Amino acid sequence: MILCSNRQWQHLCVVILLSFSAVKCEVIDNEIHKLAYIDDECELPDKLRKEIHSYQPIVNKIADEVLNGRFAGDTYNTLSEFIDTFGPRYSGTKSLENAIDFMNEKLKEVGLENVHTENATIPNWQRGFESAQLVQPHPQNLPMLGIGPSPATPAGGIVADVVVVESFDELNSLSDDAVRGKIVVFVPVWVSYEVTVEYRVFGASRAARKGAAAALIRSIAPFSIGSPHAGWQLYEDDVVQIPAACITVEDAEMLKRIYRRGVPITIRLEMNAKSFEPFVSRNTVGELQGHTYPVDKKVVVLCGHLDSWDVGVGAMDDGGGAFISWKAVEYLKKLNLRPARTIRAILWTGEEPAVAGAGEYQRGHAATEKEEFNFFIESDIGTFEPLGLDFAGNSDAECVIKEILKLMTPLNATSFATPMQGGPDIDLWTSRGFPGASLLNKNDKYFWFHHTYGDSMLIENSEYLDKAAALFAASAYIIADLSIDMPRDLQ
Amino acid sequence: MILCSNRQWQHLCVVILLSFSAVKCEVIDNEIHKLAYIDDECELPDKLRKEIHSYQPIVNKIADEVLNGRFAGDTYNTLSEFIDTFGPRYSGTKSLENAIDFMNEKLKEVGLENVHTENATIPNWQRGFESAQLVQPHPQNLPMLGIGPSPATPAGGIVADVVVVESFDELNSLSDDAVRGKIVVFVPVWVSYEVTVEYRVFGASRAARKGAAAALIRSIAPFSIGSPHAGWQLYEDDVVQIPAACITVEDAEMLKRIYRRGVPITIRLEMNAKSFEPFVSRNTVGELQGHTYPVDKKVVVLCGHLDSWDVGVGAMDDGGGAFISWKAVEYLKKLNLRPARTIRAILWTGEEPAVAGAGEYQRGHAATEKEEFNFFIESDIGTFEPLGLDFAGNSDAECVIKEILKLMTPLNATSFATPMQGGPDIDLWTSRGFPGASLLNKNDKYFWFHHTYGDSMLIENSEYLDKAAALFAASAYIIADLSIDMPRDLQ
Repeated sequence: MILCSNRQWQHLCVVILLSFSAVKCEVIDNEIHKLAYIDDECELPDKLRKEIHSYQPIVNKIADEVLNGRFAGDTYNTLSEFIDTFGPRYSGTKSLENAIDFMNEKLKEVGLENVHTENATIPNWQRGFESAQLVQPHPQNLPMLGIGPSPATPAGGIVADVVVVESFDELNSLSDDAVRGKIVVFVPVWVSYEVTVEYRVFGASRAARKGAAAALIRSIAPFSIGSPHAGWQLYEDDVVQIPAACITVEDAEMLKRIYRRGVPITIRLEMNAKSFEPFVSRNTVGELQGHTYPVDKKVVVLCGHLDSWDVGVGAMDDGGGAFISWKAVEYLKKLNLRPARTIRAILWTGEEPAVAGAGEYQRGHAATEKEEFNFFIESDIGTFEPLGLDFAGNSDAECVIKEILKLMTPLNATSFATPMQGGPDIDLWTSRGFPGASLLNKNDKYFWFHHTYGDSMLIENSEYLDKAAALFAASAYIIADLSIDMPRDLQ
Repeated sequence: MILCSNRQWQHLCVVILLSFSAVKCEVIDNEIHKLAYIDDECELPDKLRKEIHSYQPIVNKIADEVLNGRFAGDTYNTLSEFIDTFGPRYSGTKSLENAIDFMNEKLKEVGLENVHTENATIPNWQRGFESAQLVQPHPQNLPMLGIGPSPATPAGGIVADVVVVESFDELNSLSDDAVRGKIVVFVPVWVSYEVTVEYRVFGASRAARKGAAAALIRSIAPFSIGSPHAGWQLYEDDVVQIPAACITVEDAEMLKRIYRRGVPITIRLEMNAKSFEPFVSRNTVGELQGHTYPVDKKVVVLCGHLDSWDVGVGAMDDGGGAFISWKAVEYLKKLNLRPARTIRAILWTGEEPAVAGAGEYQRGHAATEKEEFNFFIESDIGTFEPLGLDFAGNSDAECVIKEILKLMTPLNATSFATPMQGGPDIDLWTSRGFPGASLLNKNDKYFWFHHTYGDSMLIENSEYLDKAAALFAASAYIIADLSIDMPRDLQ
């Protein structure tokens, strides 16, 4: 386990697993995570295989109506108007609550059932004015974004000498005297989000342990056009909380070059960030209730999050994901495709600050979760061209999902991958053995835009949203309608 | 002529041609501007052809020494240290003058001859604090960069309703009453820099004619990660100078969508920009003096500009271009390759504000220019992978350049293109019949980074800089050493 392999941090990983699964405490091995086109290694009972294949006409109908029929373009258009109306939907803002009110009405309007909200208390960290400038060796503005829940600097900002490190090992190799009172700039080599994000999450705490005055982190991104990336971090319990922000990839690499030449660096940092009392927001829920089983049992969840960062408008993270989730349910309803089990769309609040909305939902439903949930599907890693599903669960469930994906040829989305990446909200369940899946999509540029001012409708594509909504509708319908519950090994 | 086709603006185009050639008043027809791999349509005299081909061993020697020998990696390393030492080199700043002082010493240190500076008075516009926010239909920060030489807004900023237009035609179709007191947002479709930049250059003036309070322009770029682009504009003589800035591609497109839906838009804009007295800066000159002709006659110029915008560090625009220019001269000197005519490296100051540095140089040398200059070579459109040369001049000169390019196979840079794009400084001469060329390179992403915080050393590539420096050295040497002067038809 990457973040959890170090004994020192294992206690934190428990916290992360429960409330902060945006940072995944799993073995994320890119060598393992390969797209596997469907093969026949699974030996499903013939009856079940036939049953699954009997849904092909329904998949075809969904695909046809969503891609070419009355729903074509609808997801994009609805998303665009939503994004343009509410803009950034940042935790603690009126815009987010307005957006939740709107969605609550919208889900009722389009015919979803049992539409309601469930309260969730989420962090309320506001960045306020913030800026950074290189002072020595030359004056230069350094675009930056404070990372939540960083405290403010002292009024008027701080001016401090800089220590640049590429890794925690390098930081640890320095004496406390070499770091005390300095600004530590972390410039890790980009490996992948899952690997490199540990510098954003733990950088400030590690620097604080050595007495640093502040931490600046190379934005967690493989490519940049001078774009700082926001994000959330974790202060360990026993350290001084020092100000922390992400700077651009370009400036971080520049500082590293300068530092390696032995040239002294001084930076001025000013942040007026503040953590207010946690805010009571709401998760938004709407259903297509099952015709056979109790409506609150064996539920198939489709979900994404409504909240966004305060920079960008969250069209990619996670407007697209949230919208394909509830649009899939709307389309099934309008196509009169009511399955045996309930399909529940959940639009999370407060995902960005430590998966807070889903965390409270999970705790609130913990007593009933074994009976309540059958399968979880999430989209929070882009709605680029859909490829298939990214699975989490046991080998029996894996075989069922693989068989279902064979039906998705009309969507050109038959790919299967595992272990699941990019399901930060449902990871609260899948990490404990509940089966689930995340939208597998051509998201190789996802982290170019993630948590930046570039997260906009220009990333979204109408055809891809249609395909993703159809894939979610068809997959959820089959899983919710099958004669078997999804196999699982609960921990 | 694109900018000059409208009679109303022809008087301005004279100004532009003389002092603002970053905006090219030529037919820039992408259909014409094609890479033409060398063919044999030119019928050069056999003797001249043989003479040109006699330089192949010299080209090979240059290529070998610069790509694989003692100079390999030197241009990148020297540029990186320069960029990291001085940072943004914006007109009117101490950083630019420090950089010029440094280069003056550096050119002497590496052995260039007649190293000196020539004064040039350049605009001194400083942006100060600036910000823009969407007020209605939802609150949102709008990253922006004021465009020079915009005036400030009234103290405390302005709050105004918005009119969005996609074109000057659309603006002109509106009544003055519909525009008066409003902020006009220009959201032109991106065609190419040369075409679309007219909205940045003339947008504020056109909006002011209709009584607008300010103009915001979609950044002149084909792709963005929430990155506003700076730039220069031209206030027409007879209009009120209103505040003007570029906003991001993402936000401009959002505003267009909202406006097209008929939803009212309000924006708050605050700019504290100020134009100070013009600043006396310096062009930096160094030579490898010719062994046959008078050292101040028939000069072959290699050039780029040292100044940059105040955002980004100008590694691409135009650190790379400036450095391959003087490095080419240094390498020739160190290889004892002294040609018949003088090769002169010129590192322009104040290119970004209206080509001011080269403009003053041109005027200062106007009396002698016919005898003084034989050929101009510039790099100011990127130093990505070199392809060859982008030519301006008559058909005889074209045939000579095509023949010279045949020798550049060791650099894999034998491509010829015309008409020349991306030679804003030398356009002061080539637009009047002097022959010249610009570095042809794989710069399809140039305008992703142009005038943004993303203009950094991460764009530059050591191997490409070596190839470009070698191409400049070899081309300049042959042109400066040939038995013939470069053919030309002066206007």
